[in-house]
Amino acid sequence: MARINEHYLKLKSSYLFVEIARRVKAFQDAHPSAKIIRLGIGDVTRPLPPAVIRALHEAVDEMARPETFRGYGPEPGYEFLTELIAKHDYGARGVSIAPDEIFVSDGAKSDSGNIQEIFAAESLVALTDPVYPVYVDSNVMAGRSGPADEAGRYGRFVYLPCTADNGFMPAFPDAPVDLIYLCYPNNPTGAVMTRTTLKRWVDYARQRGAVLLYDAAYEAYIRDPQIPHSIFEVEGAREVAIEFRSFSKTAGFTGTRCAFTVVPKEAAGRTAAGETVELNRLWLRRQSTKFNGVPYIIQRGAAAIYTEAGQREVRGLIDFYMENARIIREGMEAAGLTVHGARNAPYIWLRTPPGVSSWDFFDKLLGEAHVVGTPGSGFGPSGEGYFRLTAFGDRAQTEEAVARIKNRLSR
Amino acid sequence: MARINEHYLKLKSSYLFVEIARRVKAFQDAHPSAKIIRLGIGDVTRPLPPAVIRALHEAVDEMARPETFRGYGPEPGYEFLTELIAKHDYGARGVSIAPDEIFVSDGAKSDSGNIQEIFAAESLVALTDPVYPVYVDSNVMAGRSGPADEAGRYGRFVYLPCTADNGFMPAFPDAPVDLIYLCYPNNPTGAVMTRTTLKRWVDYARQRGAVLLYDAAYEAYIRDPQIPHSIFEVEGAREVAIEFRSFSKTAGFTGTRCAFTVVPKEAAGRTAAGETVELNRLWLRRQSTKFNGVPYIIQRGAAAIYTEAGQREVRGLIDFYMENARIIREGMEAAGLTVHGARNAPYIWLRTPPGVSSWDFFDKLLGEAHVVGTPGSGFGPSGEGYFRLTAFGDRAQTEEAVARIKNRLSR
Repeated sequence: MARINEHYLKLKSSYLFVEIARRVKAFQDAHPSAKIIRLGIGDVTRPLPPAVIRALHEAVDEMARPETFRGYGPEPGYEFLTELIAKHDYGARGVSIAPDEIFVSDGAKSDSGNIQEIFAAESLVALTDPVYPVYVDSNVMAGRSGPADEAGRYGRFVYLPCTADNGFMPAFPDAPVDLIYLCYPNNPTGAVMTRTTLKRWVDYARQRGAVLLYDAAYEAYIRDPQIPHSIFEVEGAREVAIEFRSFSKTAGFTGTRCAFTVVPKEAAGRTAAGETVELNRLWLRRQSTKFNGVPYIIQRGAAAIYTEAGQREVRGLIDFYMENARIIREGMEAAGLTVHGARNAPYIWLRTPPGVSSWDFFDKLLGEAHVVGTPGSGFGPSGEGYFRLTAFGDRAQTEEAVARIKNRLSR
Repeated sequence: MARINEHYLKLKSSYLFVEIARRVKAFQDAHPSAKIIRLGIGDVTRPLPPAVIRALHEAVDEMARPETFRGYGPEPGYEFLTELIAKHDYGARGVSIAPDEIFVSDGAKSDSGNIQEIFAAESLVALTDPVYPVYVDSNVMAGRSGPADEAGRYGRFVYLPCTADNGFMPAFPDAPVDLIYLCYPNNPTGAVMTRTTLKRWVDYARQRGAVLLYDAAYEAYIRDPQIPHSIFEVEGAREVAIEFRSFSKTAGFTGTRCAFTVVPKEAAGRTAAGETVELNRLWLRRQSTKFNGVPYIIQRGAAAIYTEAGQREVRGLIDFYMENARIIREGMEAAGLTVHGARNAPYIWLRTPPGVSSWDFFDKLLGEAHVVGTPGSGFGPSGEGYFRLTAFGDRAQTEEAVARIKNRLSR
């Protein structure tokens, strides 16, 4: 019998959201009349912007006629899209990114999961704690970790705790590392990184020879004009950083699937013999070999985000969700809870009451208010004692959830 | 500086189709008035079927309304699609495949490139020669090969030559292997495997403890009713086979991106300690961690293939391309060339004239007839002396290409 990749067996058996679904189902089965409100998974609820809908219809019609039909496209994405991204997401912020440094994909989940493939199997990985599980699991599957300990920390990984004690800002690793995953605005804590702090990380990476894998999927939620939207706004980042972006949380593309990754030409790694190799070239080879591009129709839809109407409609979506964030934040504070995040991010990161664990608070919130959130400990041991709510619900449900928590949650 | 995955550097520098594009561009630049006809890359030219277009429009409209909007879907695909696949592609042929054995994806290229991840890094890999380059390259990138020799064969891989001498049917590996890639109808040779031969491979895999990675992306082109469309039509295959399917060549989805992979529950691998592990469970974990599903809109389009109108329209597409195949086959025979394939496959596999290499024939065909094909040697050393044409062109261009080859090609 063929041997399997045994690193998979190191993974904790159940993905966080599977366990949540299990508990919600058990509760609903026991209380069929309970109207459960889900503020757990970070999934959007507003429809696609009208400009996107129009572009999708037009592209579908193009696919119906032989003279405008599109077969295989360029694996890294059509230029009509990469040029718009370069201009609007970077050029408009004074950052120069070339279209061939942009790789359009089906999701930041895919890209942030696959990016580790272009690095050596022996690479040492640093991760914030709490963290988006994909960074962890993809490196466990690739064999870069030892087994997990009881707290859920894998051997060989360098964890960077982020708690209220350090303002949710990681300290530098206390040991040499090769790859550092950073996500700002942060999922799950909602923290943002100032330009000064980000510059320190870039300098650190340059001095230590590390690569920063920077997930900026939530940049559109930044309200504070001083906070950088891209790591490439920081000098020197082009040599040491790769950035992940997504249309999922910007334009409601969670079920429509389009994202992109920026790999600047200057970003490089090395061979054991000391030869320098462009990461852009490696990622192009990876994507060309194992990916065939995003559907033409979807890329046309994504391009419409950059029209004047599209930009206005996307701002409307972000404003809508950020108003939800405000409602939840103020409601939770009124309920006596300590609230983090929610000001430049769609995530509300609650402190659970003293002595109440993340999963206990999950059960309490579900049982008393019929509201589903995400236990902070599901994102890593340093998430214990925290709890995530998301601003992506519809308005009435969000208001109802807040009212229930204020009125029903026992102290 | 972070260490890179040096296995990437073993890859030959240029992907086959990049070199073709380079030569075509050089020729076009030198001969601006030449009307080049491309029968090289296996890309379709007919528009999407009307039933698919209608379903895509309807799904776009669903995404425009809050009450029908879809966010994240199930990573392995919506049940509305997996149930249709199970019923039409398998049930109708007497094969029992459960919806949760079907994983919808963005392409057979992605799946056949990613599947190796769930197997041990030390796995021994057998490949036919010639072969679809993705099987080779994805295993080189994962470190399962040694460096390539001058002929382009990588160390540690077990190559199974397929030439006219053995009727393009591979012999069994002459050494133990763990993973065996088979593709029937074959790209590039157009050969098909009889039920008896396929049964021998299944028996071989069962006896030797190998896994068959069976690419059936071209099954819709089978005309001979005796030829199996799925490896699961063969008894015993559920324990040892994984099958890749695609809508690309069936319904014109090369630029629309939807495919699926079947991993039966009985298919298993083992740990070093001898524990048995379900491959279905591993692939589900891989896809759940690094993939977020195919766009809802696209899955609705794919589901429309299974409507009565969709089935009729798809048959029309296949008939159209197979008529192209007949035109090319008969034309090439009339031109004095030896022709293989083209009867149960959209690929025409020519023998080049004596003493003319695959790349020489490429240059000759481009220079004399202004027709682009694919040199057989690009698919592996045993493809030397062969040349691939595809039946996916439009009718007028296909007829014109055949006429030019008949009239202009010097002997």
